[in-house]
Amino acid sequence: MVTIGVDIGGTNIKTGLVDDTMCIVRQSVVPFPAHGGEAAQVVAWQIQGLLSRKGLNETALAGIGLAVPGSIDKAGEMVLKAGNLGFYHEPLISKFRPYFPNVDVRMLNDADAATLAEWKLGALQGLTTAALLTLGTGVGGGLILDGKLFRGGNGSGTEIGHMILRQGGRRCSCGNSGCAEPYASAGALEQEALAEPGFIFSNAKEIVDRAKAGDPGALRAFNRYINSLGSLVASLINLLDPEAVAIGGGISCAGDFLFDALRKNVLPKVYFEQCGSILPAALGNEAGMLGAALWVKT
Amino acid sequence: MVTIGVDIGGTNIKTGLVDDTMCIVRQSVVPFPAHGGEAAQVVAWQIQGLLSRKGLNETALAGIGLAVPGSIDKAGEMVLKAGNLGFYHEPLISKFRPYFPNVDVRMLNDADAATLAEWKLGALQGLTTAALLTLGTGVGGGLILDGKLFRGGNGSGTEIGHMILRQGGRRCSCGNSGCAEPYASAGALEQEALAEPGFIFSNAKEIVDRAKAGDPGALRAFNRYINSLGSLVASLINLLDPEAVAIGGGISCAGDFLFDALRKNVLPKVYFEQCGSILPAALGNEAGMLGAALWVKT
Repeated sequence: MVTIGVDIGGTNIKTGLVDDTMCIVRQSVVPFPAHGGEAAQVVAWQIQGLLSRKGLNETALAGIGLAVPGSIDKAGEMVLKAGNLGFYHEPLISKFRPYFPNVDVRMLNDADAATLAEWKLGALQGLTTAALLTLGTGVGGGLILDGKLFRGGNGSGTEIGHMILRQGGRRCSCGNSGCAEPYASAGALEQEALAEPGFIFSNAKEIVDRAKAGDPGALRAFNRYINSLGSLVASLINLLDPEAVAIGGGISCAGDFLFDALRKNVLPKVYFEQCGSILPAALGNEAGMLGAALWVKT
Repeated sequence: MVTIGVDIGGTNIKTGLVDDTMCIVRQSVVPFPAHGGEAAQVVAWQIQGLLSRKGLNETALAGIGLAVPGSIDKAGEMVLKAGNLGFYHEPLISKFRPYFPNVDVRMLNDADAATLAEWKLGALQGLTTAALLTLGTGVGGGLILDGKLFRGGNGSGTEIGHMILRQGGRRCSCGNSGCAEPYASAGALEQEALAEPGFIFSNAKEIVDRAKAGDPGALRAFNRYINSLGSLVASLINLLDPEAVAIGGGISCAGDFLFDALRKNVLPKVYFEQCGSILPAALGNEAGMLGAALWVKT
């Protein structure tokens, strides 16, 4: 049997055919459709394409998991709100199910999917209390609590990026101000660099590379960014005392240069005598697909 | 059978004799001893006094629970750090046990005790995911997660007051800056009032009373305080999506005046469409004793 894991994003839809050992044996990437209402159909076509290229049909499917960047109703049927997809109370599952009427289909939040994947297959394996932070355009993430994926006390999920880090500070995309997101996302590093007079760069990776090379403006921007990210990680640690905090997203590719600076920043902010580890996420762009596939298997 | 719940604080030690219906049928309050090392002896004398005044002896005891304002080792034997008691790696249980060698003795953090009590007997009854915030000299609190008292992923506990609310802001007693504690404790309300030119007051209660009466300086101070407390509550909600957040400590006696203002402040900061309730804690000063007694019964 194979499982399908679908990671639906505002730019692309990634669909993976996952075998029993949780390896993605085949995948396909297509743009998210201009008319979001067609997403269910696009996903169905992707899956049918993957199956036929492997000489399989839907009887080979153990299930289909969908990861979406938004909040989901308690029944797991409706996308309540996914701004990047233009989805508001979108009945995604009931639109999708007719394409695979005999297959188990389940949906979860994409950050929860990535957390589940890192916990079962990646950086957080074997832990009982842990967090994943994904730093991209926004700040996403998820929690493992009491040896389970935590999906919010009322089922609304967890929004680490909207913890308040600097009350009264920068405006956040959510409408509030001072959230962690405008200080700790990859975009926030660019904003720090923009504040350095005369410092010109093309993207976050270049800022990190030039900070590594010792450019003073890049270093100042990088250090301010690390101070904010460090405060967010310390807040999580002081509240939950996790065994580990894993950090994913493009910026985590900065490796030891980032993680050494981050650990050095976090430790003095931690209330406890000991603190869990701070480490890179392991699964990269595949975490969403793998987590979606895992979700339908649990 | 009766249970003893002891709430050991830096000012007083409160000891309660608790019956099977979880009522405190008799209690005693004595000052915390000048030599902290004598605390075990003082607690033992208190318990012996309570028992003898009820005509009981230690064979009537189902157990003794001790709540302490600090962190405790995983085995529950040692107080690792309780600054207000002057305890650092204090072997409290091994000092105490000889007084009651045949009785089950257990220890937990005092904020955890209060949370357990509010969950089993007070404002948070029946919930699966909830938080208690206790606003006093500091900001304490605890979490109920997955239908259990949460004591930290590594056993170090939870320090809600040391989540970072205003990075780079006011100095905190923990040595860090910008923690929630210097913005949301009862003392923080006094600090806001001190910033109002010509506004003279004697304590936090008076500030609230005068804000209720419409004094402009008191109202400005109160509103700034509510804005900080509201950000802390919103951070907790955005991370954990709890069914309820209960607020205890002297300042919660301000009643609807405080809770109405707080709810109004929190709602726009909440990421989700719906949010749990924000309500006063129910057990007041007895929460620590009751939670300690509950802890030995669980």
